[in-house]
Amino acid sequence: MSRAVAPALVTPDDIMEFDLDSNPIDANARSSFLERFIHGEIYKARPDIQSVVHSHSPSVIPFGLVRVPLKAMFHNAAFLAEGVPVFDIREKFGATDMLVRDPEKGAALASVLGRKDVVLMRAHGSVACGVTLQRAVFRAVYTEVNARIQHWTIALANGTGMAALDVDEGRLADDVNQNASKRAWELWRSQVRAQVNW
Amino acid sequence: MSRAVAPALVTPDDIMEFDLDSNPIDANARSSFLERFIHGEIYKARPDIQSVVHSHSPSVIPFGLVRVPLKAMFHNAAFLAEGVPVFDIREKFGATDMLVRDPEKGAALASVLGRKDVVLMRAHGSVACGVTLQRAVFRAVYTEVNARIQHWTIALANGTGMAALDVDEGRLADDVNQNASKRAWELWRSQVRAQVNW
Amino acid sequence: MSRAVAPALVTPDDIMEFDLDSNPIDANARSSFLERFIHGEIYKARPDIQSVVHSHSPSVIPFGLVRVPLKAMFHNAAFLAEGVPVFDIREKFGATDMLVRDPEKGAALASVLGRKDVVLMRAHGSVACGVTLQRAVFRAVYTEVNARIQHWTIALANGTGMAALDVDEGRLADDVNQNASKRAWELWRSQVRAQVNW
Amino acid sequence: MSRAVAPALVTPDDIMEFDLDSNPIDANARSSFLERFIHGEIYKARPDIQSVVHSHSPSVIPFGLVRVPLKAMFHNAAFLAEGVPVFDIREKFGATDMLVRDPEKGAALASVLGRKDVVLMRAHGSVACGVTLQRAVFRAVYTEVNARIQHWTIALANGTGMAALDVDEGRLADDVNQNASKRAWELWRSQVRAQVNW
Repeated sequence: MSRAVAPALVTPDDIMEFDLDSNPIDANARSSFLERFIHGEIYKARPDIQSVVHSHSPSVIPFGLVRVPLKAMFHNAAFLAEGVPVFDIREKFGATDMLVRDPEKGAALASVLGRKDVVLMRAHGSVACGVTLQRAVFRAVYTEVNARIQHWTIALANGTGMAALDVDEGRLADDVNQNASKRAWELWRSQVRAQVNW
Repeated sequence: MSRAVAPALVTPDDIMEFDLDSNPIDANARSSFLERFIHGEIYKARPDIQSVVHSHSPSVIPFGLVRVPLKAMFHNAAFLAEGVPVFDIREKFGATDMLVRDPEKGAALASVLGRKDVVLMRAHGSVACGVTLQRAVFRAVYTEVNARIQHWTIALANGTGMAALDVDEGRLADDVNQNASKRAWELWRSQVRAQVNW
Repeated sequence: MSRAVAPALVTPDDIMEFDLDSNPIDANARSSFLERFIHGEIYKARPDIQSVVHSHSPSVIPFGLVRVPLKAMFHNAAFLAEGVPVFDIREKFGATDMLVRDPEKGAALASVLGRKDVVLMRAHGSVACGVTLQRAVFRAVYTEVNARIQHWTIALANGTGMAALDVDEGRLADDVNQNASKRAWELWRSQVRAQVNW
Repeated sequence: MSRAVAPALVTPDDIMEFDLDSNPIDANARSSFLERFIHGEIYKARPDIQSVVHSHSPSVIPFGLVRVPLKAMFHNAAFLAEGVPVFDIREKFGATDMLVRDPEKGAALASVLGRKDVVLMRAHGSVACGVTLQRAVFRAVYTEVNARIQHWTIALANGTGMAALDVDEGRLADDVNQNASKRAWELWRSQVRAQVNW
């Protein structure tokens, strides 16, 4: 993870290494994000996961505040087809500052995530995971795109139902996304590099 | 078509030629898009069409998931006035990865397109066609713009009806779009060129 | 007006002069917009108007397709408070290509505009007018912003009413916009200049 | 405050100093904003506040026009959890040009603000305050983001309720925002500097 700095300002010197208990290996005067336990505890609970992305996307947050489930609106969001759990920090910890700022809260989040790849956090944001950095980023981006599509689809359906991806389609389509995520990665990496002048 | 690469990264060397069966003429180590059959099978079924654009626009996808038809909200989208069919790959092929990845699926899509110029693909995206590259691109762009307008119009109408283009108006207005598509093309081409430094 | 070219590509050499009958004074091989009669016939009917802006803004078009009137949501859109008429070309001319492409259609549009400063055109767009170029552009921009605000306000109100500017507030606030339009003009002009490298 | 100029064009020479009665200390031929009393009267009523931001954000304005209260949708908008009052200038001053253009109107606005940090202004905009420039700007930005989230959440909930931050969570989370606002400030400042070539 980077040190505690706005993501758009991260440079290579800001990248820190943490152990599985979310302690910095070599802090070197850099301050850590309070919420590093989101990452550490998911890695602990899910050895298959090699990358974790935490986001506060405005289009996604509504799905953590209401009882309408996030569903897979198209093939690129196939990883949502098996259902997306919602973590409400209040259930186990009562009134908090909403941050996953210690191992217990991280473990509780990882437990709600279970075997899924995306989890919503009530009144906070979401987490997307993957076996590679490329797939986790792809899932974070397409969770956001899917949320925008679903808002409009629900408004349009107006209670008459919608033909989202079913679980079988989701499983088949998610495999294909591995290639799509590599193509997208090539683009996104080039855009970030252009922005930061590397 | 380009080789399998993010559209924003395409350069002239990425353009590949395919025969009508969607086989590359001279692959030259470049990998092809799995969905090239969308293009090949439409060209086969519709000799009048010289250009096919496939998109995943977030505003358009909802119209493939519900029973609310996409309609022509303004003159620039007149090509939608005769109705927009929806291709649901599940009807003929059951649970798939949603991709039009073989000649049979391409032919089924072309068959649903019929004599129209735009077809929606359930839980996937859409296709826009034209007698020239300029018109197909114009239709892809204005299908997207029209979808955004229709979302707001439906919300505003709230069940009280809306005065979309009728079929006669659509037919008359679509002819005019030929000039509009040339003006727009001049702009879009200049923007792409500025972006890629040609 | 400019010659028939995408607005973003206009340079000083593209500016053409027309007489009140919308005939070019010195075409010099430049082609004119078919819809120049929108401008010419409004100037003819309204000598107080010195500038006319015609737009196809996606957020504004829905208000020309339904029976929900565009209202003034905030002081910068005070010019809308007296009501915004809708021109439906079909009423007088039947099925057309939707374009105001001759003096009769321009005069019909000007007649629906009446003494107002903004008129909506069904399934087409809108027109904003002003005693100066600065005010007409300001009104075109804030008609668009106001439309976006009103979409969200109507959704939020959900039938419980909304406290739009009333006619008295609108009249008082519109005077103030004269200064606001000068400040905005300074900004917008600098942005256009940066874009076109003048 | 800057002289009366579009915010995007402000340079250091445009920054003016005002006394608590909103009179310029050294105008030096620069014209003042009519609405400087928003700032002066809030500073007078609330010595704890060191920074005041006035905005016309399209997503926020709807909440000043209807009876649906703005609520805190996520931790970064925790400062909204104690409720957001609405100032309707019409209640005390009748029909006006909507501007807070004299000390009486500024004092009336400050009185509706009370001990809160954000106040909405009917058919006009909003004001966000803070003990530092960084926190006031953070609150202005996240009031806007929160409004967008709430529009979608309300549409999604469709009357079935939403799990916004409660008052206790809001109080705890708002403390954390102090650090978040410093990180965001570093980014926003760098973006503005890049834009204005300082």
